[in-house]
Amino acid sequence: MTIKDLARACGVSVSTVSRVLNNRPDVSDRVRSRVLAMVESVGYIPNGSARDLVRSRSDAIGVVVRGGGNLFFADVLKTVSREIDAGGYTMVLRQIGSDDDEVIQGAALEREKKLRGIIFLGGRFDYTPSELGPLGVPYVCCSYTNRFGSLKDTDYSSVSIDDFETARQAVDTLIGLGHRRIAALLPGCADHSISELRYKGYLAALADHGIPFDPALLAETGGCFEMPEAYAGMERLLEQGADFTAVFALSDTMAIAAVKALTDHGRRVPEDCSVIAIDGLKMSEYTIPTLTTMVQPAEEMGRESVHLLLELIEGRGEPRQLLLDARLREGGSIRKI
Amino acid sequence: MTIKDLARACGVSVSTVSRVLNNRPDVSDRVRSRVLAMVESVGYIPNGSARDLVRSRSDAIGVVVRGGGNLFFADVLKTVSREIDAGGYTMVLRQIGSDDDEVIQGAALEREKKLRGIIFLGGRFDYTPSELGPLGVPYVCCSYTNRFGSLKDTDYSSVSIDDFETARQAVDTLIGLGHRRIAALLPGCADHSISELRYKGYLAALADHGIPFDPALLAETGGCFEMPEAYAGMERLLEQGADFTAVFALSDTMAIAAVKALTDHGRRVPEDCSVIAIDGLKMSEYTIPTLTTMVQPAEEMGRESVHLLLELIEGRGEPRQLLLDARLREGGSIRKI
Repeated sequence: MTIKDLARACGVSVSTVSRVLNNRPDVSDRVRSRVLAMVESVGYIPNGSARDLVRSRSDAIGVVVRGGGNLFFADVLKTVSREIDAGGYTMVLRQIGSDDDEVIQGAALEREKKLRGIIFLGGRFDYTPSELGPLGVPYVCCSYTNRFGSLKDTDYSSVSIDDFETARQAVDTLIGLGHRRIAALLPGCADHSISELRYKGYLAALADHGIPFDPALLAETGGCFEMPEAYAGMERLLEQGADFTAVFALSDTMAIAAVKALTDHGRRVPEDCSVIAIDGLKMSEYTIPTLTTMVQPAEEMGRESVHLLLELIEGRGEPRQLLLDARLREGGSIRKI
Repeated sequence: MTIKDLARACGVSVSTVSRVLNNRPDVSDRVRSRVLAMVESVGYIPNGSARDLVRSRSDAIGVVVRGGGNLFFADVLKTVSREIDAGGYTMVLRQIGSDDDEVIQGAALEREKKLRGIIFLGGRFDYTPSELGPLGVPYVCCSYTNRFGSLKDTDYSSVSIDDFETARQAVDTLIGLGHRRIAALLPGCADHSISELRYKGYLAALADHGIPFDPALLAETGGCFEMPEAYAGMERLLEQGADFTAVFALSDTMAIAAVKALTDHGRRVPEDCSVIAIDGLKMSEYTIPTLTTMVQPAEEMGRESVHLLLELIEGRGEPRQLLLDARLREGGSIRKI
C-alpha cells in the first residue's frame, strides 16, 4: 500500500496524510484520528526509502569492528547500534580480522556505502596523518587513542579509558595487598597497541614501589587476545616454575583463561594466586571466583562515540579526545598476603 | 580523486580505467599495469556508490537481532556478517529488545533501507501467515522455527537445531548417570518459545524413563534469559529447600549463573550437583568447572542462514527448514551418582 492508496482510502490528499505521518500541527484532530485509524487498520509503514531519495544524502554510518572475538566490543556495539538508530542514521557493520587494516577497510566501506561517518571499534594506536588520507568522512576511534602515532589532537576523535593509568591502578591494587611477585599476561610489550600501554602501566606501578621488573614473570601471547592463547601463556609460566603470587591480565577473557590454567595446575584463586584484569564484562561477575577487574564503561563509551561522531557529521563540534574513567569492581579473585 | 582524474593522470579514457578496475580482458597489459600502478600510488578506491546507482537495486540485507545480551547470537552474527560481505551484499544491523516485535521492526527496516532480504536472529515460534504479511522480501529465521505457528513449510525458511530433541538428549545424559531428581532452569514453560520446546524435551526425557515430573524442581525466570534472573531463579529453588542432584539449564549463560548460585550456597559442582546446558559457547570451556553442554553449531547456523537467504533473493531456491545437529561437549560439570 502506498501513501496514495492510503490518502484515497481516507478521502484526503496525499499531503494531508504526509502531514499526519510527520506529526505536523497543521491538521485537524478529526482528520488526524481518521488517518491514524486507517494507518493502524491497514498496517501501513511509511516508505523511508522514498524519503531517502528526496533527501539525496545517505544516512549510513559505518562501524568497523576489529577482532570479532572481543566480548567487550559486543557490549559497546549494542549501545552504538541503539544510538545510531536513535540519531536517525543507519548502521552498516563490517567485522574485520585482528590482522586486517581498519583504515583501508573503512575507506572502502565509505566509498561503497556512501558513508557519512565511521566508528572504528578497535584499531592501531600509531596512525600517521597520511595513513588516514583515504578517509573522506569524520571518524571516531572507539576504545583506543593515537598514543603512539603522530596525529594532531585537533585532527582526530577518540573515546577511551586511559589504558596506562588503568593498568597502573590494577597492579597498584595488588601491591597494596602485599604482592611483589606479579606476573603479567599480555599479547605483547612493544607492539604499539593497547597491550604495550597496559604493559607500561604495569611497569610504572612496579617502579612506583621500587619493585624490580622480572622478565621471567612475563607471559606474552604473540599478539593474540584469545582465550586458548592466554591459557597456553599462563601454562607456560607455570611449567617454567615461575615464582609469583599474583597475575595482572590484559582483559577479562584472558584473566578467565588464566584462572582456568591456574586451577588446572592445582593453584587455587585467590588462595594460592590472585588475579586482576581490565574490562568489567557482565559475564565475569558470574565466574568462580568473581573476577576483580577495572571496569571500562562500555555503555558510556558507545554512547559518547556516536555523539562525538554525530557532532562532527552535523558540524556541531570539533575533533577531540574523550578519556573515560575506569573503576575497580571488587570480586573474589584477589587477596591480601 | 574521481575516475576522471585518474583517467587524465594515466592519459587514457574513463572507460579504459573502468575496464581495468572491473578486471575486463579487453585492455592491453601495458595500459593495465600503468593504470594499476597509478591506482596504487594515489590510493584510489573505486566509487561503489556510483555503481550502486547504476545498478539501481539496493544490496542491503537486514539482520534483526532480538535480545542483545545473548552471547550465542554474538557468535552467529560474526559468521553472518562475514558471509553477507562475501556474497557482495551490505549488512544493515538492527538490535531490538526481547520484548520488541521483530516482524514489525524488520518490515520497517525493509522500507527504510530498501532491503533485499532479512535474517531474523531470534524471534517468536508462533507466527501466523497474516502477521508476516508486511514483509515484502525473503527472510530466514535463524536459530528458531515456526513450531507453534501456522506457517506452511513451503512458505518460510529457518535454520535451527531441534530444540525439543536436544533438550531431551541433555536430560537423558543426566539420567544415564543415575540422576532422577533433575531441576529445570528456564525462562518459561508455556510461552510458545524456545523455552517451551526445551521444557517439553525435559519432560519427554523424564517420561522416557518413568520419572514423575515434580513442579517443585522447576525454576522459571519470568521469560528472562539473562544471568541475574537465572541466578535468582536458582537461588529461589535452593532457599525453598528443593531436593535435586542435577540441573538442566536452557542456555550456557543461564547455567553459568546457576553454577555461581550453587557455589555461593555451598553446593559444589559437580560433586554435590551436576549441571548441563545447551549452547556451547567458547567462553564456557573456560569456566570452573568446564561446562558440559550440547553445542549448537554457531558458524554453520550463520553460514547456512545467509546461503538460504541468498538462494531466495537470487531465485535459486525455495523456502525450506534446515535442522542442524547439536552434539554433546563433555566438560566437568556433570558426574555419575
